[in-house]
Amino acid sequence: MLVRPKSGILDPQGKAVERALPALGFDGVANVHVGRLIELDVDDPTDLEAMCEKLLANPLIEEYEIQTEPAAE
Amino acid sequence: MLVRPKSGILDPQGKAVERALPALGFDGVANVHVGRLIELDVDDPTDLEAMCEKLLANPLIEEYEIQTEPAAE
Repeated sequence: MLVRPKSGILDPQGKAVERALPALGFDGVANVHVGRLIELDVDDPTDLEAMCEKLLANPLIEEYEIQTEPAAE
Repeated sequence: MLVRPKSGILDPQGKAVERALPALGFDGVANVHVGRLIELDVDDPTDLEAMCEKLLANPLIEEYEIQTEPAAE
């Protein structure tokens, strides 16, 4: 699952990165957003949305995106 | 960029999620790993690898994956 700060919500980690990169010599960087990447194996992928709502994301300030791939054997 | 704990490196956030989910009634979850998702606009995508090495990831304990997409106009 990918969890991102909602647009319009303060993203202090993103701002910190955006300020730090030019100081390291990287210019031309904008719109930095820092979120979370959560990877897991689950028996029932229909649980994933509820997991995000209840634990993995804060739906007030974050949005999430669920990506699934078939089980690797 | 996707930043993940290297396999074999302790992932306390992943372990915490793995323990919390069954307590919320979600069973059948395994191999939870929590990493970071960093999104940004950059003029020169060849800078991205150096950005990861120098700031965005800790190469000692994390691995990173760079995904690019063309600029949206």
